[in-house]
Amino acid sequence: MRQPAHGGNLVWAAALAGCSPDAILDFSASISPLGPPDSAIAAITSQFGNLRHYPDPNYSDLRIALGELHQLPPEWILPGNGSAELLTLAGRELSQLSATILITPAFGDYYRTLKAYDAKVLEFPVDLGQQSDLSFVLNKRPITKDKGLLLNNPHNPTGKLFSRESILPYLEQLALVVVDEAFMDFLPPDEEQSLISLVREYENLVVLRSLTKFYSLPGLRLGYAIAHPHRLAQWQLWRDPWPVNTLATAAAIAAIQDREFQQQTWLWLPPARNQLFEGLVAISGLQPAASAANFLLVESEHSISQLQPQLLKQHQILIRDCFSFKELGDRFFRVAVKSEFDNQRLLTALNSVLLGYGA
Amino acid sequence: MRQPAHGGNLVWAAALAGCSPDAILDFSASISPLGPPDSAIAAITSQFGNLRHYPDPNYSDLRIALGELHQLPPEWILPGNGSAELLTLAGRELSQLSATILITPAFGDYYRTLKAYDAKVLEFPVDLGQQSDLSFVLNKRPITKDKGLLLNNPHNPTGKLFSRESILPYLEQLALVVVDEAFMDFLPPDEEQSLISLVREYENLVVLRSLTKFYSLPGLRLGYAIAHPHRLAQWQLWRDPWPVNTLATAAAIAAIQDREFQQQTWLWLPPARNQLFEGLVAISGLQPAASAANFLLVESEHSISQLQPQLLKQHQILIRDCFSFKELGDRFFRVAVKSEFDNQRLLTALNSVLLGYGA
Repeated sequence: MRQPAHGGNLVWAAALAGCSPDAILDFSASISPLGPPDSAIAAITSQFGNLRHYPDPNYSDLRIALGELHQLPPEWILPGNGSAELLTLAGRELSQLSATILITPAFGDYYRTLKAYDAKVLEFPVDLGQQSDLSFVLNKRPITKDKGLLLNNPHNPTGKLFSRESILPYLEQLALVVVDEAFMDFLPPDEEQSLISLVREYENLVVLRSLTKFYSLPGLRLGYAIAHPHRLAQWQLWRDPWPVNTLATAAAIAAIQDREFQQQTWLWLPPARNQLFEGLVAISGLQPAASAANFLLVESEHSISQLQPQLLKQHQILIRDCFSFKELGDRFFRVAVKSEFDNQRLLTALNSVLLGYGA
Repeated sequence: MRQPAHGGNLVWAAALAGCSPDAILDFSASISPLGPPDSAIAAITSQFGNLRHYPDPNYSDLRIALGELHQLPPEWILPGNGSAELLTLAGRELSQLSATILITPAFGDYYRTLKAYDAKVLEFPVDLGQQSDLSFVLNKRPITKDKGLLLNNPHNPTGKLFSRESILPYLEQLALVVVDEAFMDFLPPDEEQSLISLVREYENLVVLRSLTKFYSLPGLRLGYAIAHPHRLAQWQLWRDPWPVNTLATAAAIAAIQDREFQQQTWLWLPPARNQLFEGLVAISGLQPAASAANFLLVESEHSISQLQPQLLKQHQILIRDCFSFKELGDRFFRVAVKSEFDNQRLLTALNSVLLGYGA
């Protein structure tokens, strides 16, 4: 059975662990353990009677709700079938430029979407150590105006957060800047570094957001792009008229208005992340990187090709290997931050498996 | 408020009728009145717990179920976010040929998808009268091997059914033949003219199917393409990894296995369509075309720009104008076949409005 290229392929993991997919404790997908919100499930149930109608092709209600959230008129927002769908449209735009800059290691689907339209890729490696300033990464080679940038902020898989100010110069220097903020909502309002407030100023800026991680809804497929209405109108012509289904639309409206769920998430994450970080630091041979998101990248002295199946077989715990990030290979893994109870289960399992190595 | 380009925009209709969208009797969208099947709704509800996981990127269970339905191995089937998503991928393929032949009047989204990739379109008008042989349509101009064909069978909006044998020669003569069979499942097994049984013989054949119309699930977005595995693997790289959400996947598996629902549909349609057809023939100034699908195209001596809003305002009934089919304009409308009770409401309303014209 082939190994999944992306976190969260539980069918594969369950076969290896010899249990049902439900029994796997999944640290591989960077999904909040708090969701989905009850409000989203209730909204889905309320829409069964509307399945016999086409979705509103303008997605007016959803765009208005998202517009209120981000203080933008609805036409600046384009809902999509997960931000992955919108990433594909961004890839088509980026392919029209001479090259697209990627900060590496980069999410595998970035390569897929750029390759789908034969876009040229320029790789700029991030410093896996302390230095997280974007200019430190991008000043290694000259940048010209005919290029684009596809940036993940916070960055996956490192968890690094680039400041708004550090990205600003590239809005001046590049033809198109696409910032995938799939994990930005995990930062509370006073800490986030979103570029959404700049879209009205910069026509060459596209921000991608997702409901997948924060609201634990990867099965529903709901994301959105924020950009100039002219660009979004063009994207709309490149895709089918109803990319988001009626159930996902209703769930999204309910979720983004669920302030209680949002507050709970912002209260849960910092201490749970700290617990997991400190627990990993305390294990000999493991070194987690500081992260602004709901996951930690961990450098390991031990081979992950060994460690991953052992955790599955002995503890039914799935961690994310980093083979799909070609710069990382066999000495890194990524884990989601979960409840303090589950984090402790992971730490205990890691300790037990690594003890077996005689470390 | 702009008029919808596609059937089923109930928000617009309700505003004009001065009622809630729920109160509109919608003949504009060609959706079965029998669905959605209870089995599909139950399957959706069973999946709430799985929304926190990504869909299986291979959609193995769904492909196996569809494969059993069509007696094909799973790799010959690619599920999509409605057949509209797959049509966009077909458009990308067709754009690589010198031109794509459309039988006109053609579904508006065919033009959208071909334009999205700058494909050249060659229009071949169908005879709106008796003659429905495909060669009669296509023999009007010479056809060369470097072209593609995008065909709707049964044809929308006329309801014409092209026989399997009449399409066969074009599989030999053309580089790519895409047959959109969105309405084919309304024909019982002994009458259908699907080309699915030929995909293993012709590498240049793509069949598109949809669950939208037959299972009354336009809000859910579920369709699939049937073609050579090499082609489908290429399409998969052109789009995001999870185009179909978990709820739609489960509903689809349940629906296609619901033999009772399928039998009910095949029992309902012929007499209900006949009732509507005969009722329309009996109204002076209206002439429906014979149809193999669940809708009727009606030629009218009266302006549809007048008739459509009158039916809305006086009877809360929405018919589909044909302005999006540029060959038809103001003297045609399309209506779905519904229950005998609703069909009678439409006939009574048409009689009443046209009587007001002093006809």
